[in-house]
Amino acid sequence: MDNAATTRVMPEEMELLEKILVEDYGNPSSLHRKGQMAERHLMDARQTVASILKTEPKRVFFTSCATESINTALRGAALKQKRFGRHILTSKGEHAAVRETLKDLENQGFKIEYLEQDASGRILESDLEEKLRDDTILVTLIHVNNETGCIQPVDTIGSLIRQKSSRALFHVDATQSFCKYPLYPDRYGIDLLSASGHKINAPKGIGLLYKGQRASIGPLLSGGGQESGFRSGTENVAFAACFAFAASTMWEERSELMERLMSLKRLAWEELKAVPDVFINGPSVDEGAAHILSIRVSGVRSEVLLHALEDDGIYVSSGSACSSNKPEEKSPTLHALGFTPAQMDETIRISFGRYSAEEDVMALSAAVKRLVPVLRRFSRK
Amino acid sequence: MDNAATTRVMPEEMELLEKILVEDYGNPSSLHRKGQMAERHLMDARQTVASILKTEPKRVFFTSCATESINTALRGAALKQKRFGRHILTSKGEHAAVRETLKDLENQGFKIEYLEQDASGRILESDLEEKLRDDTILVTLIHVNNETGCIQPVDTIGSLIRQKSSRALFHVDATQSFCKYPLYPDRYGIDLLSASGHKINAPKGIGLLYKGQRASIGPLLSGGGQESGFRSGTENVAFAACFAFAASTMWEERSELMERLMSLKRLAWEELKAVPDVFINGPSVDEGAAHILSIRVSGVRSEVLLHALEDDGIYVSSGSACSSNKPEEKSPTLHALGFTPAQMDETIRISFGRYSAEEDVMALSAAVKRLVPVLRRFSRK
Repeated sequence: MDNAATTRVMPEEMELLEKILVEDYGNPSSLHRKGQMAERHLMDARQTVASILKTEPKRVFFTSCATESINTALRGAALKQKRFGRHILTSKGEHAAVRETLKDLENQGFKIEYLEQDASGRILESDLEEKLRDDTILVTLIHVNNETGCIQPVDTIGSLIRQKSSRALFHVDATQSFCKYPLYPDRYGIDLLSASGHKINAPKGIGLLYKGQRASIGPLLSGGGQESGFRSGTENVAFAACFAFAASTMWEERSELMERLMSLKRLAWEELKAVPDVFINGPSVDEGAAHILSIRVSGVRSEVLLHALEDDGIYVSSGSACSSNKPEEKSPTLHALGFTPAQMDETIRISFGRYSAEEDVMALSAAVKRLVPVLRRFSRK
Repeated sequence: MDNAATTRVMPEEMELLEKILVEDYGNPSSLHRKGQMAERHLMDARQTVASILKTEPKRVFFTSCATESINTALRGAALKQKRFGRHILTSKGEHAAVRETLKDLENQGFKIEYLEQDASGRILESDLEEKLRDDTILVTLIHVNNETGCIQPVDTIGSLIRQKSSRALFHVDATQSFCKYPLYPDRYGIDLLSASGHKINAPKGIGLLYKGQRASIGPLLSGGGQESGFRSGTENVAFAACFAFAASTMWEERSELMERLMSLKRLAWEELKAVPDVFINGPSVDEGAAHILSIRVSGVRSEVLLHALEDDGIYVSSGSACSSNKPEEKSPTLHALGFTPAQMDETIRISFGRYSAEEDVMALSAAVKRLVPVLRRFSRK
């Protein structure tokens, strides 16, 4: 129940992997047929992803992960746009990949400003409207927050930016939303969009960067000029193909899948709220993303609960997995929601995926109901 | 016969891939057991690679490709060292990943100087000794040239740099040599070393960066702080494990394998030199790397020969695969050897790997012997 951290690869991808790695293993840059076969796999993957985003294949670039996509997008946009200004708008609910990159840009003289948000974490569009300036060169927002599942309305935000600013590029971190929620960057006024394969049952090691017509940013990596010169380095053909396979599978089953995940989430919350002093964090069950449920179990440290649950074979997260190894970095997302450090330490994230089932939810809720009274007694000692 | 472009993944790796992608698919940053299992795979892979390089695991970082490693190394070194100077030494036989990155650094005000070389492409150590200055902050050299197989004596070069300069960091592009030739960076005076999985029968999409004690350079990607903060982004656990598996297999079989590849190369040259006006490029057969044979077939355009050979199911390269798609960029390696553009166009690269056999060489030489007279007649029309 930690599918927002990473997901299981669909067993169907293994056949595709073997075909490409052991048979069609050519280098897409090679002129011979073996190279062309590899290039064909890459083109097909690009076409598939482009059609999900309702854009042209030439706007789709494969990277090694969302972090690389985000670094390329933000650093590229800052460098390209700095002659117009140095003002960047963002939210307090961003993933470390955005946060740390912006921190670095701040050290280089860019000015980072944070948008106000409501109690669920959604930014206030009126505040965005006020804060957009002539020298605003970039707005970057996470679509679905990885800790609370809070959804930003990136479509109306995109329109607003286009309407109010001729220059600001709009980057969306879609790592938690790609193939789960509609994302049509060309239509929404999104200039740059980052996503990752491993959140939708493709392997870890493949990412996606959409680059719209207005975003004529340069590459992060120099070299052989692969990916139309925008991402040098021999292409990860096999994982690009897996990514496309997983994305199209997910996209086709989306309505049904997301409905199922939402009922799992509703069920989980119905069960868990019966435990005394358990609270939901961020948006309400129905407002937040279907696959993420963040709760606070008052009086129980999440790490203790996490390890108690794993003895039952149940895996949940204590905050964002991507920075869990850094205890010094508490959650800025929860901080912005007014959480104290102690309250942050009582937060666990339950997240669902295509292999989640009702019995998993029931096992989790039974375990929480059994464990929490014991752990509370323990921590009160 | 194009194993310097890329290689077939060992079928044995598929089992490992399935185990990690479908079972042990956790996020190494997760605190629970599923995450720890993934982290264990990553630690094992790092340990394996470190032992091949005879270094500590903490010096080994996984990246997405050699291009990323090279960009990280060169840009990181330049940024870190620029307070001491802006002078960088390199050769005229570098891969596009180094060349293009240095071009970018040159645009940022760094001064790139090229070392003199002999007729085979080996740099002159006396010239290096002369050109090393107080403000030299970086020396970057390719170990085994990807087009001609020319080997630079990186061990003695490393010693010379350490002896002559207190500041210059030494980066080695070991993409074509890792696991084929001994490379002990701690002992050789190498500060940074880049390599790639897909040249040694691991998949495309995984790279390696060794960072020695003296090279306290910063990261290229900001984010969640994975790989001790030096390479953020969720780790490609599965491919790191494949890389380690392929590397250790290759390394264990190295003596026998390299001897076998050298006899294939000798056989190939014995056969091919019988064709009139066929020349070997760069180092002599015995001096060059065992897996790369570059020849020039006078009067026959390599692209024509390449496509004629592929009808026989034989795949060779016309120059470096990594930049074959860019016709405007002829080979700087061959240019430095005094080749005219027309002569470059007559060059083909034959390269061997663990799945190459004597019958492949005989089929190639038979095809070349049959095709060349026909193609020469054709091109003289």
